[in-house]
This record gives sequence, structure tokens and C-alpha cells, in this order.
Amino acid sequence: MSDSVASTDDSAEPATAVPPAVVLVEPQLGENIGTAARAMANFGLDDLRLVNPRDGWPSEKAVAAASGAAHVIERVRVFETTEAAIADLGLVLATTARARGFHRPVLGPEGAAARALALPADTRAGILFGRERWGLNNDEVALADAIVTYPVDPRFASLNIAQAVLLFSYEWRRQATGAALPFEAFPTAPPASKQALVGLFEHLEAALEPTGYFRPPEMRPVMVRNLRTLLQDAGLTETQVHLLRGVVAHLEGRRGRPIRDRATKDDGEE
Amino acid sequence: MSDSVASTDDSAEPATAVPPAVVLVEPQLGENIGTAARAMANFGLDDLRLVNPRDGWPSEKAVAAASGAAHVIERVRVFETTEAAIADLGLVLATTARARGFHRPVLGPEGAAARALALPADTRAGILFGRERWGLNNDEVALADAIVTYPVDPRFASLNIAQAVLLFSYEWRRQATGAALPFEAFPTAPPASKQALVGLFEHLEAALEPTGYFRPPEMRPVMVRNLRTLLQDAGLTETQVHLLRGVVAHLEGRRGRPIRDRATKDDGEE
Repeated sequence: MSDSVASTDDSAEPATAVPPAVVLVEPQLGENIGTAARAMANFGLDDLRLVNPRDGWPSEKAVAAASGAAHVIERVRVFETTEAAIADLGLVLATTARARGFHRPVLGPEGAAARALALPADTRAGILFGRERWGLNNDEVALADAIVTYPVDPRFASLNIAQAVLLFSYEWRRQATGAALPFEAFPTAPPASKQALVGLFEHLEAALEPTGYFRPPEMRPVMVRNLRTLLQDAGLTETQVHLLRGVVAHLEGRRGRPIRDRATKDDGEE
Repeated sequence: MSDSVASTDDSAEPATAVPPAVVLVEPQLGENIGTAARAMANFGLDDLRLVNPRDGWPSEKAVAAASGAAHVIERVRVFETTEAAIADLGLVLATTARARGFHRPVLGPEGAAARALALPADTRAGILFGRERWGLNNDEVALADAIVTYPVDPRFASLNIAQAVLLFSYEWRRQATGAALPFEAFPTAPPASKQALVGLFEHLEAALEPTGYFRPPEMRPVMVRNLRTLLQDAGLTETQVHLLRGVVAHLEGRRGRPIRDRATKDDGEE
């Protein structure tokens, strides 16, 4: 994907919904803060909040790891408590990889993003991510309206913070923008007219006639039908029909050559 | 999320569909091969193929970066050409971050996973990821049935290979398993009976009566309705109703204390 590394396009339509806040609770490594910031930026999130980052803030390692997501790093706010970090939010989600026995809905990233997008305009949601070592504690999870976990293969369930942030951010933007992609398919040419197709059928059949392809003669109708079905279903454009007629014409040209050459070219059918 | 790092569960149901192959074309850094393998393992993919890895294979850096996804690393196959790497596949997808002007459908990870899952049983799909520097070349993209790109914010479109592999793998597993999550919500207790609710209403209203809360008297019906609406909509369980009645009973208890104390506690309403 990195042919996109350089690509920046300020004319881009930002998603209209309020992007959720990402709250990292007591993150231990500055590098993880940076890669989380970068993952947010990929999908249009920019409100990153830290609760008691172990190594303090600002962090050179975070800036380095954010590799370009400076607009997110510069906006980072640091809080002393999780309660303070979520004070202005209308919906709080808590990520956890283990069942905690809370009477809370358990959502995947898809459902979590949908909950955030269902909020009234100007109401911001936030999602809590826990410590690298042991995640969120139960009091922190209890602050949340819903628990978020990921549809991982339980045989290899480990997601790092940046991956977890990336998947939630992806789901949020996918739903917020109706899965808008940065570019569209090159407009497809219209299908060939039936007249052009029938012209190709008849040209090919005429070219095959003298080669002994249609043997035994009683099989001819079936063989013709199979060829026409193949070409019919190929979804050819007008241009592609012309292309194939050129190919047939050149193969036909071979008919002029010495018998020996012909014989081999035609799998010795004559 | 890393309270999941240790979690492994061999009783896990694997997805039933054939997981797509991930083909890295001329990857430059062993570390990216390892992080891609790890991202695949998170979502149950295990068929990783390399076309001419720049630094050769095997790669110690790849093994280190895969941090535990040894089952994917051990299965890695190396090919000299992209054609050879995709020879056994029934559908090939090519990731690119730029429009290439091909007459090919352009899919997001969601649509790409859906195409792979729509294949007949035992038919394997594969997805091509290009070089870190400049992605896939046009001849490589031309080998694909569809182009895959990501719904990124075009103002910050850079995804590294592991992120791109992670998002595709996530979409594949999400759809292959019906978004099955590793654990479910703790079963929610049934809502309180209306009898229990009305008991709470009447207890609270009786407790408020002597405090002068219901003033002016003509407002009483509206004030009662608002309180009952609040409690009605709170979705209380039987246990929570008992909890609130205990709270009301204790607050009522305060009525026995000296006037001065009462006065302050009751905002001087008496």
C-alpha cells in the first residue's frame, strides 16, 4: 500500500460526524502512543487523550512513531484520571479482550462504531484502550456504556494498541462515509452490441470451417453453441470484439502456408 | 487490548471457509513480513506467500516481528514470479492506493472479503500487496480480478503493509464467522416486575412527602409523573429496585435528626 505514503489531498471531504475520542489509559510506551495516533489519522480521527502516560508527555518516541500524524500528536491532551478524560463525552466504550462479567453490551468494532454514529449531532463518543500489560481495570470498564472486543481468532488473540485503534477507526470511517473509497473504478466501456458479437461468431466459425475443426459434422451445432456461449458470457466490449476479430484474421492468414506447417499448427487434424 | 497477549484457546472454532492467501510481492523488510504474518494470525489466515523477498528467506527479523505467529512463518512459501505465486488461486485481488486506470472493479476490504467468501468451496482467493516503496507494478495489478483499496482519509492515506493485511484479514474473518466475538455479554438480569417498580414509586413518594419536596401542592401530579418516568425508563432490574429502596430508606432515616442538621441536608426547604 505504500505507494500511498506520499499521497496527501487536502481537498478530501472529511467525514461529517464528530470523530470519537481515543483515550489511552496509562500507556507505557511512547511508541504505542505514536502508532495509535497514526492509525487514527488514517481514518480521520484526531482527538487523542492520555491518562497518566508512564513516561510522561510530550514524548519524542511518540512523535517519531506517529510518522506524519503531527496534527493528532499536537492536539493530544493529558489527564490525571480516566473520569476527567471522559468528562465531556456522551458515550464511552471500553475495549477488553476478556469477558469481565459486567452487565454491559459486548460489541465488535462494527457495532461500536455504529453506537458512536447513532449519537445526536455534536455529541462525542470516546473509546478506552488499556495498558499494554493488562488492559483496563474493572473500575475503568465500569465507566463505559458498552464493552468492545475484536472478532479475533481466539488461538491468536493478541492485538497491540495501534492495531486495536486502527480497526475501530476503520469501522468508524467506513460507516461514517458510507465506505467511500479514495478513488473509483475506471469507467467501464459499454458491452459490445449484439450485431458486433454475431459478426465475431460468424467470422470465427467461417475461419474454423476449412480447418476441419467442426468434426464430426453432426457435432457442429453443439460446437457452435459452446463457442458462442463462451464469447457471449465473456462480457466483451466493442473494442475487445475488434481485438478478437484481428486475432482470428491473423490466424486465418496461416491457412495460406505450406501444408506441413498447417498440419502441425492444426494439431494434425488434416 | 494486550490483556489478551497470553490468551490462547485451542478449542476455538476456526472459520469454515478457505482462508485467502496473502502474497507479498518483493517485500523489502523482513520486519514487515513478520508483522503481516502476525496480522494474518489474528484473524485466522495462515497462507503467506512471498515473491522475491529482497533480503531473502528465511529471515530472522521476520520471525522476531511475527512474535508468536510461528505457524504462519513456518508455512511461508517463496516464489520467483507473481504468476507462480498465484497459480493455484481462483480469484486474485490487488491492493493499490492509487487509481490505475484499469477496467477493474475497485473494492474496499469489505467488498474484497465478500468476493473471496463468494467463491465455491475449496477455491482459494489471494490478495497481492506490493513493495513498501512503490506498491505493485501495472503488470502485477493486471493479473488481478479486482483492485482493493482502503477507505482512508485521503489527507493521511499511508497504510503500512501490516495494517493493510490486518484490515483485509479482519474483514475476511468478520464476514466468514458472522462477526463472532471471542466472548459474549454477561447474561442480563430480567427487568423488574411492574409491582416492584410501583412499590419503589410509592416508597419514594411517601419518603418525599414530609420533606416539602412536593411544593407547590398543585405541582405534585407533574412532579410524581416526572419521577416515575425517570425510574420507569431506567430499565431497572429487580435487584436494582431493592438497591434503590435501601437508599431511600436510609435517606428517610435522616428525618430523625436535629432540625439544624435536617435544614442543611434538605437545602433549607423547611
